Amino acid sequence: MRFDTVIRNGTVVTASDTFVSDVGIKDGRIAALALGLTDTDEVIDASGLFVLPGGIDSHVHLDQPSGDGIVMADDFESGTRSAAIGGNSTVLAFCMQEKGQSLREALKVYHEKAEGKCHVDVSFHLVITDPTAEVLGQELPALVEDGYTSLKIFMTYEGLRLHDDEILATLDTARRTGALVMVHCENEDAIRYLIGRHEEEGKFAPKFHATTRPVAAEREATHRALSLAEIVDVPIVIVHVSNREAMEEIRRARQRGQKIAGETCPQYLMLTADDLDLEGLEGAKFVCSPPPRDKASQDACWEGIEQGVFDLFSSDHCPFRFDDPQGKLHEKGKRHFRWIPNGIPGVATRLPILFSEGVMKGRIDINRFVAITSTNHAKLYGMYPQKGTIAIGADADIALWDPDKRMTLTNDLLQHGADYTPYEGLEVRGWPVRLLVRGKAVTEDQDLLSSVPSGRYQARQRSNLVEAHLRS
Amino acid sequence: MRFDTVIRNGTVVTASDTFVSDVGIKDGRIAALALGLTDTDEVIDASGLFVLPGGIDSHVHLDQPSGDGIVMADDFESGTRSAAIGGNSTVLAFCMQEKGQSLREALKVYHEKAEGKCHVDVSFHLVITDPTAEVLGQELPALVEDGYTSLKIFMTYEGLRLHDDEILATLDTARRTGALVMVHCENEDAIRYLIGRHEEEGKFAPKFHATTRPVAAEREATHRALSLAEIVDVPIVIVHVSNREAMEEIRRARQRGQKIAGETCPQYLMLTADDLDLEGLEGAKFVCSPPPRDKASQDACWEGIEQGVFDLFSSDHCPFRFDDPQGKLHEKGKRHFRWIPNGIPGVATRLPILFSEGVMKGRIDINRFVAITSTNHAKLYGMYPQKGTIAIGADADIALWDPDKRMTLTNDLLQHGADYTPYEGLEVRGWPVRLLVRGKAVTEDQDLLSSVPSGRYQARQRSNLVEAHLRS
Amino acid sequence: MRFDTVIRNGTVVTASDTFVSDVGIKDGRIAALALGLTDTDEVIDASGLFVLPGGIDSHVHLDQPSGDGIVMADDFESGTRSAAIGGNSTVLAFCMQEKGQSLREALKVYHEKAEGKCHVDVSFHLVITDPTAEVLGQELPALVEDGYTSLKIFMTYEGLRLHDDEILATLDTARRTGALVMVHCENEDAIRYLIGRHEEEGKFAPKFHATTRPVAAEREATHRALSLAEIVDVPIVIVHVSNREAMEEIRRARQRGQKIAGETCPQYLMLTADDLDLEGLEGAKFVCSPPPRDKASQDACWEGIEQGVFDLFSSDHCPFRFDDPQGKLHEKGKRHFRWIPNGIPGVATRLPILFSEGVMKGRIDINRFVAITSTNHAKLYGMYPQKGTIAIGADADIALWDPDKRMTLTNDLLQHGADYTPYEGLEVRGWPVRLLVRGKAVTEDQDLLSSVPSGRYQARQRSNLVEAHLRS
Amino acid sequence: MRFDTVIRNGTVVTASDTFVSDVGIKDGRIAALALGLTDTDEVIDASGLFVLPGGIDSHVHLDQPSGDGIVMADDFESGTRSAAIGGNSTVLAFCMQEKGQSLREALKVYHEKAEGKCHVDVSFHLVITDPTAEVLGQELPALVEDGYTSLKIFMTYEGLRLHDDEILATLDTARRTGALVMVHCENEDAIRYLIGRHEEEGKFAPKFHATTRPVAAEREATHRALSLAEIVDVPIVIVHVSNREAMEEIRRARQRGQKIAGETCPQYLMLTADDLDLEGLEGAKFVCSPPPRDKASQDACWEGIEQGVFDLFSSDHCPFRFDDPQGKLHEKGKRHFRWIPNGIPGVATRLPILFSEGVMKGRIDINRFVAITSTNHAKLYGMYPQKGTIAIGADADIALWDPDKRMTLTNDLLQHGADYTPYEGLEVRGWPVRLLVRGKAVTEDQDLLSSVPSGRYQARQRSNLVEAHLRS
Repeated sequence: MRFDTVIRNGTVVTASDTFVSDVGIKDGRIAALALGLTDTDEVIDASGLFVLPGGIDSHVHLDQPSGDGIVMADDFESGTRSAAIGGNSTVLAFCMQEKGQSLREALKVYHEKAEGKCHVDVSFHLVITDPTAEVLGQELPALVEDGYTSLKIFMTYEGLRLHDDEILATLDTARRTGALVMVHCENEDAIRYLIGRHEEEGKFAPKFHATTRPVAAEREATHRALSLAEIVDVPIVIVHVSNREAMEEIRRARQRGQKIAGETCPQYLMLTADDLDLEGLEGAKFVCSPPPRDKASQDACWEGIEQGVFDLFSSDHCPFRFDDPQGKLHEKGKRHFRWIPNGIPGVATRLPILFSEGVMKGRIDINRFVAITSTNHAKLYGMYPQKGTIAIGADADIALWDPDKRMTLTNDLLQHGADYTPYEGLEVRGWPVRLLVRGKAVTEDQDLLSSVPSGRYQARQRSNLVEAHLRS
Repeated sequence: MRFDTVIRNGTVVTASDTFVSDVGIKDGRIAALALGLTDTDEVIDASGLFVLPGGIDSHVHLDQPSGDGIVMADDFESGTRSAAIGGNSTVLAFCMQEKGQSLREALKVYHEKAEGKCHVDVSFHLVITDPTAEVLGQELPALVEDGYTSLKIFMTYEGLRLHDDEILATLDTARRTGALVMVHCENEDAIRYLIGRHEEEGKFAPKFHATTRPVAAEREATHRALSLAEIVDVPIVIVHVSNREAMEEIRRARQRGQKIAGETCPQYLMLTADDLDLEGLEGAKFVCSPPPRDKASQDACWEGIEQGVFDLFSSDHCPFRFDDPQGKLHEKGKRHFRWIPNGIPGVATRLPILFSEGVMKGRIDINRFVAITSTNHAKLYGMYPQKGTIAIGADADIALWDPDKRMTLTNDLLQHGADYTPYEGLEVRGWPVRLLVRGKAVTEDQDLLSSVPSGRYQARQRSNLVEAHLRS
Repeated sequence: MRFDTVIRNGTVVTASDTFVSDVGIKDGRIAALALGLTDTDEVIDASGLFVLPGGIDSHVHLDQPSGDGIVMADDFESGTRSAAIGGNSTVLAFCMQEKGQSLREALKVYHEKAEGKCHVDVSFHLVITDPTAEVLGQELPALVEDGYTSLKIFMTYEGLRLHDDEILATLDTARRTGALVMVHCENEDAIRYLIGRHEEEGKFAPKFHATTRPVAAEREATHRALSLAEIVDVPIVIVHVSNREAMEEIRRARQRGQKIAGETCPQYLMLTADDLDLEGLEGAKFVCSPPPRDKASQDACWEGIEQGVFDLFSSDHCPFRFDDPQGKLHEKGKRHFRWIPNGIPGVATRLPILFSEGVMKGRIDINRFVAITSTNHAKLYGMYPQKGTIAIGADADIALWDPDKRMTLTNDLLQHGADYTPYEGLEVRGWPVRLLVRGKAVTEDQDLLSSVPSGRYQARQRSNLVEAHLRS
Repeated sequence: MRFDTVIRNGTVVTASDTFVSDVGIKDGRIAALALGLTDTDEVIDASGLFVLPGGIDSHVHLDQPSGDGIVMADDFESGTRSAAIGGNSTVLAFCMQEKGQSLREALKVYHEKAEGKCHVDVSFHLVITDPTAEVLGQELPALVEDGYTSLKIFMTYEGLRLHDDEILATLDTARRTGALVMVHCENEDAIRYLIGRHEEEGKFAPKFHATTRPVAAEREATHRALSLAEIVDVPIVIVHVSNREAMEEIRRARQRGQKIAGETCPQYLMLTADDLDLEGLEGAKFVCSPPPRDKASQDACWEGIEQGVFDLFSSDHCPFRFDDPQGKLHEKGKRHFRWIPNGIPGVATRLPILFSEGVMKGRIDINRFVAITSTNHAKLYGMYPQKGTIAIGADADIALWDPDKRMTLTNDLLQHGADYTPYEGLEVRGWPVRLLVRGKAVTEDQDLLSSVPSGRYQARQRSNLVEAHLRS
């Protein structure tokens, strides 16, 4: 067989295995694993490098409206560029339904936003904000058939949050269609109550974003989401878990026999609520929801990564500019933390942070790294075995990692639309020195090889978690 | 000192102590504990008997409208008569606010219902169904000052259930006023969802009352109520807990440092969901919410009684006639379990069941019996030390129990307004052979001594749980 | 009735009740509770004071040999004097069997040590160090009949520790005789292993006493003791629990259905391992086993007191002189922490510390104080209702506490044989200003009223925990 | 490249991946994964079959003395033959040290037993029964260097059990050398105590094997082993876990941060204590330790397999003849259950049972099957990546499974030395229709292809669990 490309002498890593092999690529797919593959147009020397499945970031916000007139800092071009820099070959972004809007219309909008702008492959989770009978009963079943097999709901945020009866109806539709539901778990009413008390007490600084969204509000919503899923009898994903108590809810649900996936993010390993307590508005750079907690919570999240509470490690990339063009953050955010947009950039830093802090510091092995940054995302969101692994027939989505390369994270490096990174100055060890998407080289070192986007939209199958639930 | 009455030679029991002593009563109060009290107008020989504080049943529904035109089977006359027969000297009934109604108006109605009709002392919990700013901000603070120091909210039942924002507002008022909030914990939306699925499947028999209100719906609401209380920082009472999972939520809350009281009821020790699965409508006699569960749940509730998860053992007396005058149960309840009124009679059977099954069978000692049937109720609901114990200065509310008296529970015996008891035919050992309320003999053996009601309304102080919370 | 003494106008407190009453005392017993008792030889004005049952300290080491030639600092005279100063009317000391010694012989020795020297009432737990067939099969059954109804075993200390087969045999004897077994839970082999590692590393300072006896060694032995008791089917007492993990074992055992009593001590509320890390040998003043842990463990122990994990609050008084006459501590203890005798004085400080830190600071109410410092000890060790409460017929063992009296703990104040207190300088609020033992005044303010000891030996009945186990 | 063998068109399965590929084998190793590999001496058509790594059974007893004169039913020839029939390419047997024997001598004996007799590859765990200073200090370090990197200790069985000090010393050696310790966790003293009570009560039938080895005895020893490992700071393997309580100990240990591997076996999924309660001696066929428990324990063990409590699924193959040549079982076992040898055959049935009950019934996916039956064994016991996976460079240890093949388990089928199987008559779906060991075909359908043993001894590296512990 003649290959288009052969990656030579690298150490191939999957979610379970590590072995030295050449990788032969043909027509964008992995065609052979063996040593001594020579019959090829192009050779990439991977001696001393790890050959990993490209990262899949299944929790990325791009080009969404933010409601208050503050514009999200990344469109699909800059967002996927940054993703590629950080070693990702696929991102799953959100298609946000507006109130009153049909899902088809929403999809049209987001496909247009993405069309021709993506440097890596992309797919969409549907965000359900208006679960009418039409949406749940007619649109969703058809869309699931069409490959939109995952959806997300919110238990917080004015205008987004669903009430329990709506959550139940949405979960029931998931049960009937085989869709997988992701849930953002924080109790909106509790948060609003606490904001009211803070306002009474004149507490408006960024740090109070954290105290108005306490662990109890996340734990409560997590347990509620899990209970509603138990009652409906359907698997769910608990996204961006920030602390031990919410983790404990996932553990308890599994011991009750529920099929549950759990996700955490770099901010819950690296940041704390103290980061929000900086001079002036600086703390705004660390505002996300749930908020970063404390050192003990970081340790808990590491434990969850090591012990399998978490299946997914995602970025929850949700970028805003600190110096936003309209100056709204500095105008309104200064007066009240609730005007600070919720979200931080992270699609480029997710993998290097976990590689450095997790693999290189010995907390996890590199197979676990692959599992929670790529393979599990592919399996959970219906893209496996096409994506998420190094195996015969899979898309040649491959990241070459140099474990010895030391880098300092800076905003410039990341090429996203935000004007800061919460990890400015962080030293990491290990870097994705080259990325291939479907066999095509997309980055080398820290740069795109071409400014012409070549990413594709990816339709998806049913989740392996849904399959497992149906089997059991 | 000359006494009005002396109870001689009985074994006095308090929540911690057991000792042989005469009890000298003067002006309706306990004036002396000693042996050889002779200077008295009247002697009651209590040799061989236990001298217990009269039972306090803090969870009794009397003369409430039921919405569907089915009339509650007990007014204050028959309800307190039955309470007295069963060894209770005080009952706490509910004053149910109607939507749009002020609490003062509601209280006026319930005071009128009770006035001159009570055979034992009585007080009211306020049921908040319409927590307007006026109700929470103006009325409640004044009423708490006036001695209405407890209130109840529902997380289930159409028309009664509060949403989280309303629960938070109510808890916040409790925090500001020192009132104590009781919570009925079941997730209404989940129940309605399950009713819908049952209807799709043509499941309408009484037994489906139980399957539409599963443990998960109770556990969820319990955890949510506890979490909201944690966030507001206020103690609450979780009433009528039916199973281990809800108990576990109480345990977890306490280990987080919350001040929480827990209550269970005889139906969760003696009945199971199988009791709802009888021929025809017979199962309707066992319909209450939460529903009875299974044998393992009964064991769990006993464990909770023994180990202190539960502070209160109450009846949740909520009586309806099986042959209701309008025939509505047989007409509508036959067509759908949701038309069966929720509730069973139990104010007279609570104490004999626990005495027999708990004390005489060795599961708890008699001090624990006194604690969870009387003393804790008095303390928790602000009537201590006036009520709930045998101590100098306390009201002479005293029940004499013959531990060797064997009785068979029958509907006739109980003198309530319902036309059945779920415990028909149950043999018990131990019976309250005489009851004194404020020193006045009210029952002897199984009968009232006078048809003239002499019970009084009891204003109440702040709960000891609230006091403990404020101290800590 | 004419009384020998009447305590007037005090606030009487039991484990469940609080009420204002006079207390009439006749022939050393409580004869009447009422107001206005006037016919008496002697009146004690208790206005503004609490009238509590005298403290019972069920864990006190007096006049025991220590093996290394270092003499215990208190004999029965000084030990019970200090106990009385601190508000105790009864202490339970240990009768330590020597290897090869019969229990009868050991009892003869300890009765002689105590005879005529006790200022408060006293009884003995039997320490079983040599559980031969003769001891377990012949002696113990007869001694239990004679009122020696409790025994203690050690899982640590060379020469004292029993192996599992011996523990099982001892527990089996308890099962057959109705005796109650107290267990000191630390894994001796693990400690010795760690001492070996410390020695390899040249770690000999007092602070290493703590690191060689880690929480894991206590948790392990606690779980093992509880498991062996489960297998034999017999209740036990876990003494001097120092941390959350061991507490958790007690909770788990109870949830398995076991009857277990738990005890903690002031040192686990007030001290930490840091106290052992002082200049020179100063840390030796805080050496006890298990060692004090950290702040989180203190919080856990408070939680256990509040929530009922612990039934008993005892001193584990085990006094040594810092300047011991032989100078052994300074000679050998300086070279290796293992030569520092294990134990600290505390019989006089137990009650004031808990009163001040617990009751006055709002962590527990005064009824709980009475329960865990007196009533529960009496019930658990078979002295109730003769001791441990204020009730008709009980021994007039009464401590009058002035809740407003502020004192500073100093070694001089305590009148024990040790030359230091670990609590030197601690300010407390509340003090036992007068103690009566069987109606006889023993202390006033901080002094004995008579140098002539009048305490008696107290034979004991079967434990209420054993009774409860047999009933269930 | 020219291959010796190509397996064509099969579905290759690893612990994380599933994909269709040919497998090219050269010099006993996997040389290529690709479709269309044609240049080969031999083709095996695997269409419709799964191509799995050969099973590794890391818990197999072969040709060990049993002490009572009853001979183990399998030597290395029959044992490895049966292993091969059941789809295993490697077994790890035990080299049992006799008291007083050096490990080198013991190894000499077992190497001789195995030499030239093995149909599959084999390695040895060292069983430490006599942990002298010489053994631990001199022999073991050298042997670990020589590739004997795992050892096993017993907490039960007369003559085998180690006491805590010996366990600590052994674990400490493991800590110093990097060896991995497997622990059989049951409390010997508790078992002996219970046997004594059974004897008093005249209980001698086989079923009392189970009641003398209760869950509490296993839970206790499990917690103790884990605690001692925590104190020493070393990873361990808890073997043959039978119930939820022991599983819970593993979970707790991991949450404390310990590195622990857990193992369960088919008997804990398929058998219960009721199986021991058959007419006459029939129950003896199911006697193993720990004993099978109940249905709830089976469910728990399945949960542990699904949720990652267990890393290993092994057989604990320990075969005896029911009709033993000496007739000892029928002579002595009839008189007392303790004379029934402990152990059941299972090396051939392990994989088909899990494949059928786990994979085909939907409880686990086939990747998890591979992980817990092969890959994890290789990693945990230092044979990875040479063994335990389908990857470039790995030994071509491959089992072809036909998922549709239905078989009925019978003793004849299994070709082991025992004269019965506990699973007689069990229908399974899925069967290993062909086995290759290092590229050489060993079985086809249910038979060996050659009577000439070609298995090799396998020296081993350090465990991945030890490596992970050292890194963290």
